[in-house]
Amino acid sequence: MGSLPANNFESMSLCSQNPLDPDEFRRQGHMIIDFLADYYKNVEKYPVRSQVEPGYLKKRLPESAPYNPESIETILEDVTNDIIPGLTHWQSPNYFAYFPSSGSIAGFLGEMLSTGFNVVGFNWMSSPAATELESIVMNWLGQMLTLPKSFLFSSDGSSGGGGVLQGTTCEAILCTLTAARDKMLNKIGRENINKLVVYASDQTHCALQKAAQIAGINPKNFRAIATSKATNFGLSPNSLQSTILADIESGLVPLFLCATVGTTSSTAVDPIGPLCAVAKLHGIWVHIDAAYAGSACICPEFRHFIDGVEDADSFSLNAHKWFFTTLDCCCLWVKDSDSLVKALSTSPEYLKNKATDSKQVIDYKDWQIALSRRFRSMKLWLVLRSYGIANLRTFLRSHVKMAKHFQGLIGMDNRFEIVVPRTFAMVCFRLKPAAIFRKKIVEDDHIEAQTNEVNAKLLESVNASGKIYMTHAVVGGVYMIRFAVGATLTEERHVTGAWKVVQEHTDAILGALDGKTTTIHEILD
Amino acid sequence: MGSLPANNFESMSLCSQNPLDPDEFRRQGHMIIDFLADYYKNVEKYPVRSQVEPGYLKKRLPESAPYNPESIETILEDVTNDIIPGLTHWQSPNYFAYFPSSGSIAGFLGEMLSTGFNVVGFNWMSSPAATELESIVMNWLGQMLTLPKSFLFSSDGSSGGGGVLQGTTCEAILCTLTAARDKMLNKIGRENINKLVVYASDQTHCALQKAAQIAGINPKNFRAIATSKATNFGLSPNSLQSTILADIESGLVPLFLCATVGTTSSTAVDPIGPLCAVAKLHGIWVHIDAAYAGSACICPEFRHFIDGVEDADSFSLNAHKWFFTTLDCCCLWVKDSDSLVKALSTSPEYLKNKATDSKQVIDYKDWQIALSRRFRSMKLWLVLRSYGIANLRTFLRSHVKMAKHFQGLIGMDNRFEIVVPRTFAMVCFRLKPAAIFRKKIVEDDHIEAQTNEVNAKLLESVNASGKIYMTHAVVGGVYMIRFAVGATLTEERHVTGAWKVVQEHTDAILGALDGKTTTIHEILD
Repeated sequence: MGSLPANNFESMSLCSQNPLDPDEFRRQGHMIIDFLADYYKNVEKYPVRSQVEPGYLKKRLPESAPYNPESIETILEDVTNDIIPGLTHWQSPNYFAYFPSSGSIAGFLGEMLSTGFNVVGFNWMSSPAATELESIVMNWLGQMLTLPKSFLFSSDGSSGGGGVLQGTTCEAILCTLTAARDKMLNKIGRENINKLVVYASDQTHCALQKAAQIAGINPKNFRAIATSKATNFGLSPNSLQSTILADIESGLVPLFLCATVGTTSSTAVDPIGPLCAVAKLHGIWVHIDAAYAGSACICPEFRHFIDGVEDADSFSLNAHKWFFTTLDCCCLWVKDSDSLVKALSTSPEYLKNKATDSKQVIDYKDWQIALSRRFRSMKLWLVLRSYGIANLRTFLRSHVKMAKHFQGLIGMDNRFEIVVPRTFAMVCFRLKPAAIFRKKIVEDDHIEAQTNEVNAKLLESVNASGKIYMTHAVVGGVYMIRFAVGATLTEERHVTGAWKVVQEHTDAILGALDGKTTTIHEILD
Repeated sequence: MGSLPANNFESMSLCSQNPLDPDEFRRQGHMIIDFLADYYKNVEKYPVRSQVEPGYLKKRLPESAPYNPESIETILEDVTNDIIPGLTHWQSPNYFAYFPSSGSIAGFLGEMLSTGFNVVGFNWMSSPAATELESIVMNWLGQMLTLPKSFLFSSDGSSGGGGVLQGTTCEAILCTLTAARDKMLNKIGRENINKLVVYASDQTHCALQKAAQIAGINPKNFRAIATSKATNFGLSPNSLQSTILADIESGLVPLFLCATVGTTSSTAVDPIGPLCAVAKLHGIWVHIDAAYAGSACICPEFRHFIDGVEDADSFSLNAHKWFFTTLDCCCLWVKDSDSLVKALSTSPEYLKNKATDSKQVIDYKDWQIALSRRFRSMKLWLVLRSYGIANLRTFLRSHVKMAKHFQGLIGMDNRFEIVVPRTFAMVCFRLKPAAIFRKKIVEDDHIEAQTNEVNAKLLESVNASGKIYMTHAVVGGVYMIRFAVGATLTEERHVTGAWKVVQEHTDAILGALDGKTTTIHEILD
């Protein structure tokens, strides 16, 4: 007597089941929870920056999709063997690169609920809770940031302001820029689109340039105004004013300014109040991009960094960066939601419904690029409730404290210097020229360039070890290493350990360990 | 002796814990899995369309975020009591509205893994697996659709084509439109942006109009070409050609055509091959929007609907609609990825890395609007593997079969008619004028308008019952009820039951139950 091979049984059982069978959902769901809990337990053991080579996965996976079903057990094995080695572990406590992508249990659970319900909340009708919860949590978070009331929903809907969850800052900026653009073109005529000018500093996130590009702003009219060490790389209102005046002189039309609280390179803060004052003179829409540092402003001691926001037109921060809400979740508040809706609304017959007609509801599809939208407020709601304002402040402060600790460690090693003052939870540092060139003779005008090269080499050496992961930036011609604290699992011991790793690699590169005299050429080889 | 109240203990324990503590993650994660498994078990019992009134949630939730943490148990109670009543249950087996948002266990698990790893895969370096898995599954799915090789990644990277996961079709269209726009403006000069013309039919999804609006296309130059019942509301190549010629005559520049396979109103199919032939004559970029119906094209018997795709420039479908992948997951393939990258790339210093410099890798940030991006390929990979091509076809065919079953039921009740031929898993029907006006006298030119009103009334009556949920569309002036099969849990018995609900409400509205003669005024009151 023959018997069916085991995998035939399995595949038959998979076939006969509804792909959303609740019992099977339960069984497999529990498996993944355990899988991920184990992942977090072990994440410290993996090289933080993935060590695979380009094309590694193509060699491991089949060239086409399977014809027959495969079991979750098989798939999870492949996740372990094939996917995890190719991950850069943003959740590792030894992750200090870019800006954090700070996960949390509450954020994860909120995402699960949102994914489980899988509603498509394009308008109120399509799932009222999705829209209403979003408006409520955006008011909650707005209050936590003490945003002016003009940015919040008022109880009678008369303020005109309010908040919306976007995927990313790029989308938030594109939406506000489009609103500003259309408001202006309605005044000056659409034929003048090529005259519109967008302002930023040379430190502004590339999202703005991309948004301007997509929105059809002439690339010649994108002004990345130079900043300098004198203002800690914040945008100078005087420079803004003179740039604007020159543009007006040339017959151009100032449109939009993006000011940043916590730039990507160095967490520089543009002076919002004075910049808004200049912008107001010229009728410019001001957007405040506080993608990273906005979160910190729920702590009273950091709130002053967004002083002046009352004069801006829109404000955004990424809860998926440093606010324990998993990717993606960008919080955008606007004062004049009408402009947004005018620029972005559509009203096809197949979406018409009584609630929309009543004008008593918000249809968030008209506040964003896409029609479809996920129930993102669920995760922000869970984060706010699971931790409460008190704990959220505590978590953020602990990251700042750890960054200070790292700064202190740097201060005790005179081979290093802090390149720009630390403001939040990121430290920008480098090996000083004096440490590199102590025993060597180089041509003077090469010192800065070679210092940059040695620091790049140090960073690459550290990252290649897989022990920690940091990234770099260049401000004012200076290559610096960015140490961004904010991964949720990071504790002080990881920061201390990270500094040891930096020192070890420095020792090796500078040849200090064995006392040999290293030349700059040896270092850079 | 006093003792601390229980909730103080709880809040202390929550405070002392890392927000990503693996053991607590495990405990709470298992709770949510059980919560959602129970939700799926019970989802049939909830009113499909939420029955809350605008503003319901504000009355139930506090006005500000809590200062102290709250337990997951409390939060889940609130989800049950406050959120679930405000949901429209897209996962209910009695959900037949809009297009489906077909969840699955595999899609859910993939989202969990993606959320759990929480990597930000903007470029290859930031998490190689996220980029490489995406390229691989996009080739897998492209092969399943037998897309021409020019849309797929070639092993040596020479094809120039390839796939990318976007959030939604709106984003996919905006990206391709921006690419097409810049390619054209580079030829004819940026000062001519106001001359660019975008083409579609009057049945094309509103996403195109919004994308054109955002991309700075002059609203006067958006052509929604009329369709008619004669072509089943597909776009006529002759109409396209004559519209284009008139525009050229007026000194305008034809830019972009969006052709649809499975329109939102009636699942009409534009004739891709002939439309591409016209578009090619004028150097127009053709995008194929197969958001809903594209999935069916993995079945050989449906593949012919995208015949001609080889002459298009880009093609997209939403795996989150009818492909068991939770929101959001839009699959976009392009032939000329260079155009996309030229229009959307940014290269800030802080993202520079060796892998990018080597040009051996894809940096998907340059294929989309946003910089940050979720690891969406994980869920598509799990869907493809967990079900395999065989089961995926079986699932889709079962939905089509159920739609046919519904169509058969309609056919047996001569009060109803099918308004447009069924092509996929959606049936468009209405109460015939003859059924409504059998016993009444009305002015002839009011018949169609009043038939529309009665059908609207019927739909509202059915939806208000909460038993099933359908939505409507209007094509060629005819209001019709759309019955879209595709919710994963739907079985034939639900379809049969849905038809009974429609009949019951029809009986009540037409006054047939008690034999009384109803006048049109009574019906519409």
